[in-house]
Amino acid sequence: METVCSSSDTRGFGFKLIKGSVTGPRLGCIFTPRGTVHTPVFMPVGTQATVKALTPEELEQLGCEMILANTYHLFLRPGHKLIERLGGLHRFMNWHRPILTDSGGYQVFSLSPLRKLTEEGVRFRSHLDGREVFLTPELAIEIQVSLGSDVIMVLDECTPYPADRSYTIESMELTHRWAERCKKVERKEGQALFGIVQGGMYRDLRKESATRLSEIGFDGYGIGGLSVGEPKELMVEMTEATVECLPADRPRYLMGVGMPEDVVEAVERGVDMFDCVLPTRCARNGLLFTSRGKLVIKNSQYKEDPEPLDPECECYTCRNYSRAYLRHLYTSGEILAARLNTVHNVHYYMKLMRDIRASIMEERFGSFKKAFYDKINS
Amino acid sequence: METVCSSSDTRGFGFKLIKGSVTGPRLGCIFTPRGTVHTPVFMPVGTQATVKALTPEELEQLGCEMILANTYHLFLRPGHKLIERLGGLHRFMNWHRPILTDSGGYQVFSLSPLRKLTEEGVRFRSHLDGREVFLTPELAIEIQVSLGSDVIMVLDECTPYPADRSYTIESMELTHRWAERCKKVERKEGQALFGIVQGGMYRDLRKESATRLSEIGFDGYGIGGLSVGEPKELMVEMTEATVECLPADRPRYLMGVGMPEDVVEAVERGVDMFDCVLPTRCARNGLLFTSRGKLVIKNSQYKEDPEPLDPECECYTCRNYSRAYLRHLYTSGEILAARLNTVHNVHYYMKLMRDIRASIMEERFGSFKKAFYDKINS
Repeated sequence: METVCSSSDTRGFGFKLIKGSVTGPRLGCIFTPRGTVHTPVFMPVGTQATVKALTPEELEQLGCEMILANTYHLFLRPGHKLIERLGGLHRFMNWHRPILTDSGGYQVFSLSPLRKLTEEGVRFRSHLDGREVFLTPELAIEIQVSLGSDVIMVLDECTPYPADRSYTIESMELTHRWAERCKKVERKEGQALFGIVQGGMYRDLRKESATRLSEIGFDGYGIGGLSVGEPKELMVEMTEATVECLPADRPRYLMGVGMPEDVVEAVERGVDMFDCVLPTRCARNGLLFTSRGKLVIKNSQYKEDPEPLDPECECYTCRNYSRAYLRHLYTSGEILAARLNTVHNVHYYMKLMRDIRASIMEERFGSFKKAFYDKINS
Repeated sequence: METVCSSSDTRGFGFKLIKGSVTGPRLGCIFTPRGTVHTPVFMPVGTQATVKALTPEELEQLGCEMILANTYHLFLRPGHKLIERLGGLHRFMNWHRPILTDSGGYQVFSLSPLRKLTEEGVRFRSHLDGREVFLTPELAIEIQVSLGSDVIMVLDECTPYPADRSYTIESMELTHRWAERCKKVERKEGQALFGIVQGGMYRDLRKESATRLSEIGFDGYGIGGLSVGEPKELMVEMTEATVECLPADRPRYLMGVGMPEDVVEAVERGVDMFDCVLPTRCARNGLLFTSRGKLVIKNSQYKEDPEPLDPECECYTCRNYSRAYLRHLYTSGEILAARLNTVHNVHYYMKLMRDIRASIMEERFGSFKKAFYDKINS
């Protein structure tokens, strides 16, 4: 089942909480000028203005309501101004539902080893051609405004893991000052701005960061700096600490997360939004998510297996192809392998989110979670 | 417009000529247990049990009525017996319209340098793992029978170019003896068998080969050993010489051809069937066929071009994406580039064949051909 929300003001951005409060599982709707998004939502990643291997129509058919695009990649190639002159990112890539863009901060810190961080911004070398680029909080917003993003993220410093307390404080405070600068940049009508909570692996700093950002005031809040190599328990603990200090009436977005289990755990703690390359990247590497856990398609046990990837799955791939055929495509390096596997994995995530939403609506998230783990571990 | 033919005997293979005779443009229908194919037909190539980057549904939507699959590749991986145990090639790859399989001869001669040809067959090393394999005319048919092919090709020796007369005669005669052996192998009901004409670049040998094969008697005739590096004029001349000596009431198939111009020239001379990797391979390399000639999408002139690949084209790609976006996808190495480009090129070929068929039906092939060249050269 699915609850349908409608916005009274279709020109702007909004969020309505249907079930839940500050903590615990929440059901809601995000309203944007390009349509409504049901939360908890998982956003597939379209790094270079394409969710790898899929068309926009396929994404829609899979039930995808919102995707993420990468500011860093599009800024470097083909350039945000070019995309703006061509009518914006939605038109460029033929995706007409909402798009959230990250700020580029994470990529600068993960893809560009020769970066130099100052109060003003971050200087780095393009991973494509080595040219030097200087990204400021203001420029990060301007790029996203040009792209025509529906949800714009502030530029932050993604605190590395591990980091000591004094570095984490300094980094967090820089992120807060940058967030204030980002808020001052003009956006187009309907474009929301999300702050990003940092604070490393320190509960009190997470709370301080969430409180400080809430004071500045944003349309929603990213939870950054998690899923960076820390133990799962720490990710859950930091999410919990953060969420308690965020306003109930704004969406919370756990950035770059994650595995299906991570999503379930975070939903339980009050997170509304997720994005991750896992379903698409794993698909291309032949790792499939199924109701019974993960499946590595290249394994020889599937060589002559006439069964679908997941007998319980209703996706296009499972309705039409055997494991034997998918293994053949994968071992032969065929493009269709990437396509069919991606369809399956994205379907898995979209169905997971539908099941999660139905369970919250019907106030049985606890039993949903138990059944989810029982099956995966069976 | 399209003529629809219906077979009186849906269990077997048949061919009906609607327009034309021994030479000159012909319109016809091939009947198979898996459906009717309108000729002249172009068959996209599905080397490894997939037409690269496309799903079967997309091929159908593009108007594709028949595809080719490669015996050599499927024999080596995943193996014809495995495919047979899984219900045959159609079920394996989820394509339920007719499939023509080549005999593997061409691939043995082009992909396996360490081959050894004897009267009995050809010994070669797999291009995948180097293991030694011995392919006989009988085995070539057995493999195709196992795959469940609708049109089976005899094993031939593809005479290289250039080749002197005495080598060409010897090679041609071996091909004839192999053709006789192939015909003796049992096939399943409804599976057609095509002979293959050789004879190198010698008009009289081409005629001799066509005549000899017609005497043996096949359901259709491949014209082999062309498009192997010879000048275009020679290809046309050899096609002409061959076709004159083939029975009017059987389909003729110019193997591995070719460029749109080659197809038009061969149709004019009485060829009914074509296959070629060009539309799909060129697509992946960013070379697009348009009504105004070829377009290389990576060229910088398209960097900010908002136009579709071909303003006259009605394919999914041209209806939804700009050259600028397609260039971005291509230069970024995105899978969607291969997909969208392949959709466009296959659409181009399918539309070309529809236009050719309509012009033959309406007895205006000459003016069609003139307009085709005028536009390409404009």
